[in-house]
Order: sequence, then structure tokens, then C-alpha cells
Amino acid sequence: MADAQEFLKDFPLLNHNINGRKVAYLDNGATTQKPEQMIQAICGYYGGCNANPHRGAYALSIKATDIYEGARKRTAEFIKAKRPQEIIFTKNATEALNLVAYSYGLHNVNAGDEIVISISEHHSNCVPWQMVAKAKGATLKYIYLEKDGNLSAEDIETKITERTKIVAVTQVSNVLGLKNDVKAIVKKAHSVGAICVVDGSQSVAHMAVDVSDLDCDFFAFSGHKMLSPMGIGVLYGKYALLDAMEPFLRGGDMIEYVEEQDSTWAEVPAKFEAGTQNVGGAAGLVAAIDYLEKIGFDRIEAIEADLLNYALPKLRELPFIELYGCDTTQDNKTGIIAFNVKDVHPHDVASILDNDGVAVRAGHHCAQPLHRYLGQNATCRASFYLYNTREDIDRWIESLKKVRGVLGYGA
Amino acid sequence: MADAQEFLKDFPLLNHNINGRKVAYLDNGATTQKPEQMIQAICGYYGGCNANPHRGAYALSIKATDIYEGARKRTAEFIKAKRPQEIIFTKNATEALNLVAYSYGLHNVNAGDEIVISISEHHSNCVPWQMVAKAKGATLKYIYLEKDGNLSAEDIETKITERTKIVAVTQVSNVLGLKNDVKAIVKKAHSVGAICVVDGSQSVAHMAVDVSDLDCDFFAFSGHKMLSPMGIGVLYGKYALLDAMEPFLRGGDMIEYVEEQDSTWAEVPAKFEAGTQNVGGAAGLVAAIDYLEKIGFDRIEAIEADLLNYALPKLRELPFIELYGCDTTQDNKTGIIAFNVKDVHPHDVASILDNDGVAVRAGHHCAQPLHRYLGQNATCRASFYLYNTREDIDRWIESLKKVRGVLGYGA
Repeated sequence: MADAQEFLKDFPLLNHNINGRKVAYLDNGATTQKPEQMIQAICGYYGGCNANPHRGAYALSIKATDIYEGARKRTAEFIKAKRPQEIIFTKNATEALNLVAYSYGLHNVNAGDEIVISISEHHSNCVPWQMVAKAKGATLKYIYLEKDGNLSAEDIETKITERTKIVAVTQVSNVLGLKNDVKAIVKKAHSVGAICVVDGSQSVAHMAVDVSDLDCDFFAFSGHKMLSPMGIGVLYGKYALLDAMEPFLRGGDMIEYVEEQDSTWAEVPAKFEAGTQNVGGAAGLVAAIDYLEKIGFDRIEAIEADLLNYALPKLRELPFIELYGCDTTQDNKTGIIAFNVKDVHPHDVASILDNDGVAVRAGHHCAQPLHRYLGQNATCRASFYLYNTREDIDRWIESLKKVRGVLGYGA
Repeated sequence: MADAQEFLKDFPLLNHNINGRKVAYLDNGATTQKPEQMIQAICGYYGGCNANPHRGAYALSIKATDIYEGARKRTAEFIKAKRPQEIIFTKNATEALNLVAYSYGLHNVNAGDEIVISISEHHSNCVPWQMVAKAKGATLKYIYLEKDGNLSAEDIETKITERTKIVAVTQVSNVLGLKNDVKAIVKKAHSVGAICVVDGSQSVAHMAVDVSDLDCDFFAFSGHKMLSPMGIGVLYGKYALLDAMEPFLRGGDMIEYVEEQDSTWAEVPAKFEAGTQNVGGAAGLVAAIDYLEKIGFDRIEAIEADLLNYALPKLRELPFIELYGCDTTQDNKTGIIAFNVKDVHPHDVASILDNDGVAVRAGHHCAQPLHRYLGQNATCRASFYLYNTREDIDRWIESLKKVRGVLGYGA
């Protein structure tokens, strides 16, 4: 498609030669590359507007405050939150999910209660809930998968019960690339009086997200997986829940009054943003949102679907390739392909592809429970984004064909 | 001094006209400005090296890992930690101090125990300890001040007792600018079996810090107060303590094995770094350390001392100026001056100075207990750094002379 070529020019890293050639970067599920417009937004902030926001009575600090609070408003619009105060900036999605675990989970889950998550969760939406369950004597239950990798409809129906206090699910699996029907899961959670926490790390850069329509209670994502700098993440939370919650990190800016023995808290969202926040990161996030909205998610989804539909038949032609989560007939497969090369360790596969300038990830992708469930120690993962081209796919497939030969196996 | 003029050229923001003139930026205690070298390090990272570290088996990810782990090594050398593993990257000093409160404090302080902090602490080194004391039924005790603003020697001697489990003090007060004899306080804490947590936010960019010589157990600081980007902070901790501690944030990269119900943890420092870290911020931090070490702290201290000694006599000539923490005869006053203009609210002072392009901070500076102790609701604060000049001081003093006139008071 012409589109990707059009965008490619905006990404300086993808136009550099690395070890003598341009990289076919297929690890977008880990982090995306950054457009020049976003990089310039960071430079522009530090070179012309840098100050500590909220705290100064001078022009520069007021400017920094406007940039930071403007980013909050822009982010709220981006995911269709009802008000800017429902956006809490964190350092990454992991901190956002931990914030919910510590400030909501530890205060609202009690002995005998249940927390329900899926077996496909990234560790960041699993290990914090293990902590809450253990600390409070609650039970952690898992939704397992249908044969095609989608969440078991029966498990959703039966495991979310009157005992459930929290349901935590990802909108898109970071390994299988399958989109969950989060809206239905939220509805089920609410029907038993539970809240629903959604991990949007793999969705928010790839499809239009409307948290008000999903009706989820919390929604977490990282900037760096959506063209933004590292060090900035987002927690969306419904205002009434945030307002009732205890703070998490404590320090400057999140207080109202500090006496020697007691403190009272600032209003939401300041209550959850202790210390100096990443204003440069927020400026970068706005530039990324501008970039994405200018293209539009219809085009982004079309580009990724084209890459997926171009790659899958070629992969299926290779008898030594095992695919995971690619058998779904539903319209819910995103541009993430988990695979293995028969008899070859995924790290060896990734190293051989790397020699050809093709970057894919190998390992458990921070999803050990899912890998154990799939009966695999590890997999390789290729994940696409708007700047990838069919040429990237061709380079990946050509390199894959060499892997077994390099290691002395037959084809 | 010629020095500051030499450095000034490196700071793009300070060479811009803001509202028609260059800013006399005297709010370095809140955040410092950024040298072009540091800004370029961030751009260089995102434009040429960006990838998710630790997780990829391809060249770009290995490069990102080298940058990130190189930053850890460089930071360890900078503050003279014994090993790189003793450096944990956080988003800011506040997160670093909260990490200690949650992961050490909540697990090592019990009912009847005591935590001792100073009345001069920033909220980030006070409110987390209120949380620990309340959660565990411990007592939070305060070291008050001598008349000159220094910590009471008697309080240090008598309040740190066999019941004390944690002593938490700042190396330099962010309001009074007074340097504490942290080494002696650490020694006292250790003599009763307590650990000592040091807030280095106001010291590490202004003087040579040697955590091994101080023998402190934890030392926290923020990058953005030392020429680095926002969104990167540092917690130093002694290895044996870190090794024995529970994790704080939970998710990817900090685990060894994740089963459905239980997890085991990665080694220090990974155990405390959940999710994708701020590699761009770490690259910026290294550029800042390079910049500071090239100049050397002897010169930086000399520049700040010159500004202080130039400003103080001029301020003392103004009968309507009240100074705080400026009566010390000891050699422990840094380039931070807290002041008020008689009968004028600090915010009005800062606004009038801002009209003349002079940026100072007004408020409680995240130190409400100190302000209450001083009998002030708020103060103004001017804080210097290596790029400030005597001309900045002149502009500040000249503007100050106008304040009471503008508001209709006599001089």
C-alpha cells in the first residue's frame, strides 16, 4: 500500500541503515518507532517551554502547566473519556495497573472475594492481581481459551459471579493478537457488581477506543507503544471511583494540607500525580495523538489488515512454521503473529532474522501463564504498525526460509 | 564570573526571548533548564537507537539495552555506588522514596517502632512516612531546627533512639538551602540499628555526592533537577537491603517465573523495574552527567557561592525583605534563598517579578510543615544554577525594589 511508504519518511530510525541495511521493524508490540514530529515536540518543549508546572507564578511555569493540562484534555478526547480529570498520567501502563491494584484493589477486595482475569494477560495485568488476592485472602480465577485462542465464552459466563469484585482483561492479547469483546465482559462484570479493568496497551494505537462506550471502569496504556516517548503512560478511571480511592504515590502536588501527623489530599487527578510529572513526555504524547488522528484509525486498521492478509498465506505455505492464534475466523485478529519454527529455539530464529535486518521478538512476551497454557516455553512474535510495508513481510518470510538450513536441518 | 556566560550558550531556552526579553530563571530548585547536548541525546536515542531493552534478540534492542544498562553504570559511578545493581531507575525522586516506604517501610516497621524525619522535609520525604507510621501503628517523630535553620543537634541526639527503625532526611533543604551533615545522621541512625534514607533532590546537581562515604542506606533524586529530562529518577539502595526487599510495582521484566497463582522475582535491580523503562530519559541522564562532570562540582559550587555572596548583601540592604535560613555562619548554605516582601503575598511578588522576566517560585514549596514551623503561610524562593549570572541577580533585586510601590505601599 502507498500509505505506509508515505508515513515511513516521518520515522528517522526506519530510514537509517543499521548494520548496512534498513531495519524491517516488526516488534511494534514491544515499542513503536517515533515520528520526527513527536521527537521535535520533545525538543521544542525542553528548548522553549520547560518549567515545573502547577507550582510557579511566572509565565514559563504557566506555559508548562498549559501544555501538561492540555495533554490531559487531548488524551481524554482521544479515548472519549467524559472529562479530563479522568485521565491520570503515569510512567507506563504497568504503573497504571499497579495504581488500581494498590489504591482500589487492596481497599475493596476482601477475604472470600474473587478476582477474575484471563490466561492471556500480560504480566502487568496478572502479577498485581496475584498480590491483591494474596494480601486480602481472595481467590484469583482465570478465563481460559477456546481452541482458536479467543476467551472461553463459557468461562466468562460461569467464572464471573456474585463473589467477583474485579475483572481484569486485555483488549488485545499481546501474543495472540486477538481482540476481546471487552464491552460484553464489562457488562457481565457490572451485572454482578464487579468493576472491570481493561489493559489497552495493544489496542489504543491500533483502533479507535471509546472508554465511555466500553463503559469500563479503568483503562490503562503506555505512550511508547503509540509513537510517544518512553516514560509516559495513562490511567483512565471513572471519576467517582478515582474520587473515592486512596492515593498511591505520596508527595508534592497530590496533597491539600500536610500537618506533622496527617495529610489531606488534592482533588482528582492531582491526588494520583505525586512529584514532578513528565511534561516533556506529555508534549510528545500530544504530538503522537495528532499524528494518529490525522491518519485516522480506519486507514491504520486497513494497513495492518493488509499486512496480515499478505503474510498469513505465505506463512501457511511453510510446513515448518507453527502459528498461534491465527485460526480464528472472526473479525478480531490484529497485526500480531506468534509463531515458531519447528525444532528451532525462538531466540535462534530471532537471531538469524536479525542477521537479515528483520526485528522480531522471541521469548514469553511477558505472558508466561499463556505460554504454559499453549504448551510452549517461548514463541517468536512479529507485530506490525502503520509504517510497515509488504517488503518488510517479504524480507521476514525470505529470512524465515533460511532458518532451518542455517542450523543444519532440512526444510 | 565568566563561567556562567560560557555555559549559558548551551541552554536554548535561556537564549530565547520570552515576552520580549530573556528570562532570569531563578527556579532551579523546582526544575533546571536543559543543555542542547542533553536534548540532542534524547533526539539521538529516538531517531537512531529506539527499541524495548532486555527483551529482544535483535541488534536494535541490544543497543537499547546497552544504553540503558550503561546509564545505570554511569549513574553508579556518578554517586559512587559500589555496584551498578544498586541503582534503580524510577520516574522521579518521589517514586523512589515511595518505593522505599512501600517495599522496606511497610515490611520492617512495626507497632511501637519509630520513624524520625526532619521538619524541613519536602512532602515527598514526609507523606510516605506518615503512611507507613499509620499503617503499622508506629510513631513519626520530627527533628526541629536551631534558630539559624539548621537541624537541632539535640533533637538528632535524643529523638533517634533504640525504637527508631528509619531516619529520613534531606541532604539540602529545598526551602532554606541548608546542607545537613548527613554523614553524621547516618552514623547516629546506624548506632541504634536504624536505616537512613537520604533525599538528594537538592544536592546531587550542586555538589559531589559519595553515597559510599555517606554510608546511607537509600539515596533518592530526580533527573529533571539536574539538567536531565522529566520522567527519570534514581533510587540508590545498598544491595543487601534491595535484595531482601519485596517488589513494589509488579509486571513485566521484574519476574523470574509467573505461575497462575504465584510468581518469583528477578534479581536486583530488575525486581524493581516493572514494565518498559524510560530509556530515552536514561540517555538524557547520561548526557547530563557528562555535562556536569566536564565542568566539575568545584566550579559549580564556586559559581553558586559567588551568586549567593553577591545577592545576600544586596537583599540585606532592602528593609522590606525578610530572609529565611540566611543567618547561618556555617559553610553549609547553598544557592537557595527563601524570602518575603513585607505585607505582600508571595504570589503577588512572583507575579510582579515575572513582569520583569524574573522567574522565582512562590508558595509552600511542598514543605508545609516547615512553613508552619517558620510561622509563614508561604514564601518566595530564588534558586541558582550554573548558568545564572550576576546580571540575573541585578534584575531580581531591581524588580524587588518595585514590588511595594506597584502595590501602593511605601518603600
